[in-house]
Amino acid sequence: MTDIGRVAIVGAGQVGTMVGAALLGAGPSAGVTAIGLYDRDPEIAAKSVSLGGGDRVLLDPAELFEADAVVLAIPLGEILSWLKAYGPELGQGVLLLDAGSAKLVVVEAMADFVPEGVHAIGGHPMAGSEASGPAAAIPGTLRGASFALCPCRTDDEALALATTLVSSCGARPLVLAAEEHDRLVARTSHLPHLVASALAVVGAAVADELPLTQALAGTGYRSTTRLAASDSEMVAAFASANRRQLEVALREFRQEMAYLETALADSPNALATALGKGRIGRALVLGSV
Amino acid sequence: MTDIGRVAIVGAGQVGTMVGAALLGAGPSAGVTAIGLYDRDPEIAAKSVSLGGGDRVLLDPAELFEADAVVLAIPLGEILSWLKAYGPELGQGVLLLDAGSAKLVVVEAMADFVPEGVHAIGGHPMAGSEASGPAAAIPGTLRGASFALCPCRTDDEALALATTLVSSCGARPLVLAAEEHDRLVARTSHLPHLVASALAVVGAAVADELPLTQALAGTGYRSTTRLAASDSEMVAAFASANRRQLEVALREFRQEMAYLETALADSPNALATALGKGRIGRALVLGSV
Repeated sequence: MTDIGRVAIVGAGQVGTMVGAALLGAGPSAGVTAIGLYDRDPEIAAKSVSLGGGDRVLLDPAELFEADAVVLAIPLGEILSWLKAYGPELGQGVLLLDAGSAKLVVVEAMADFVPEGVHAIGGHPMAGSEASGPAAAIPGTLRGASFALCPCRTDDEALALATTLVSSCGARPLVLAAEEHDRLVARTSHLPHLVASALAVVGAAVADELPLTQALAGTGYRSTTRLAASDSEMVAAFASANRRQLEVALREFRQEMAYLETALADSPNALATALGKGRIGRALVLGSV
Repeated sequence: MTDIGRVAIVGAGQVGTMVGAALLGAGPSAGVTAIGLYDRDPEIAAKSVSLGGGDRVLLDPAELFEADAVVLAIPLGEILSWLKAYGPELGQGVLLLDAGSAKLVVVEAMADFVPEGVHAIGGHPMAGSEASGPAAAIPGTLRGASFALCPCRTDDEALALATTLVSSCGARPLVLAAEEHDRLVARTSHLPHLVASALAVVGAAVADELPLTQALAGTGYRSTTRLAASDSEMVAAFASANRRQLEVALREFRQEMAYLETALADSPNALATALGKGRIGRALVLGSV
């Protein structure tokens, strides 16, 4: 097994803290000798370290270049800026992994700005919640979760190192092409974010009856709109980065909604049949059929 | 406080069991002297009783007419059939309460088929999950939940009795007109059911990549599509019964989706602003702003 060495995590929010805490929990046997957290707000990095997200705060961006592995746990737009600004400065043999929710734009930027010999690879942990900040990192969340790995170029060492790091977190490495990741995640995550937002607005729309709406909104509204509580800029960044695939998913979604509306106008039996498709689809995806 | 006396619950699924168990938990001090469960499948009623959903199984529909309070915890179409078939036979002074998710059609059927002197009132507990059957009734679910009460005619005694029963369950009575209930619940519950179903289908649509989709689908897909796991016929029945209001909500939802799509095509900043509306809407409805 390849040793990871010193890890530097850029961004000490929920994702950075979650990854750092998982690596810290894995112990020295995982070959991780240090876990430093850098955040443009040093207080957030300090907070993350106090919560077990790492063993030191990195105050100077230059310290990142002393690490053996750099993990970018920042919003998607910032990942792209970071790659452009610092990618060319990374040293040979270093592992560079990100944790953004859209992958094609990231691996393309890695190919553009990160020199050959740096082991760059796109990553996306399928875990976490709509909340923000280091306190939102719930211990153990990565355990058993899929962690997508999308190569940016042929580099067996990048794949081996990233697989080791992800496995040390207790997550399951899932290697797939960035295009494939983006096509599927547009449907299972990016589309649901937009839909949750629209549902949240419609639920709140009868403004003069808000107290009644509050009393009537139950667990259904709460769960279907949960993603709407996510940081809007973060969601806008990854949704925009995956715009082409998201537009395909939006088109399919409109067709499914039209199909349900036609069934609703037809009869309860027709609607039950249409809803049955959703029931089966969900069971297929979540593996309970 | 008005005593309830003997309660008969028609339908021993999740809702009937939830109500029966809450009344049983309230103890004799709540003035409930017996809780019988009737189900067209007597094994389900027996199962419910074994889980604490009541203290006896009612095998003969005629036994219902010996109760002081009848609670209809059956799907919406069956509530309407029941009211037509048995409503005229109910005795004077009996409380009749239902637990269906659409209220206007129910209170209209109550007014049509239940004689004056029977204390009929529409009800809707804002609690429960997408699962079916008595085992899906989780103890304590009604505690603190809103329980909508929609009068079918001017009847103070119906309101007093229903309020006592609902309070005995630990729920909070919420008195409002059936039209108002249906208008708001179309937005907070019926629309989310349809949307969850469409999302579930789109997520499962890339059929030849199902194993990858399974690995990538995370908590976002799980929560936004949770309602899609509901019993399709049950959902179709209440959605169809509230079709007019649901169509208004669907129209508003289409507009919100179009607004988000336009913002997506515009810029990440525009999309973030649009998503911010959803974030605020959800916080308003769930009372966290």
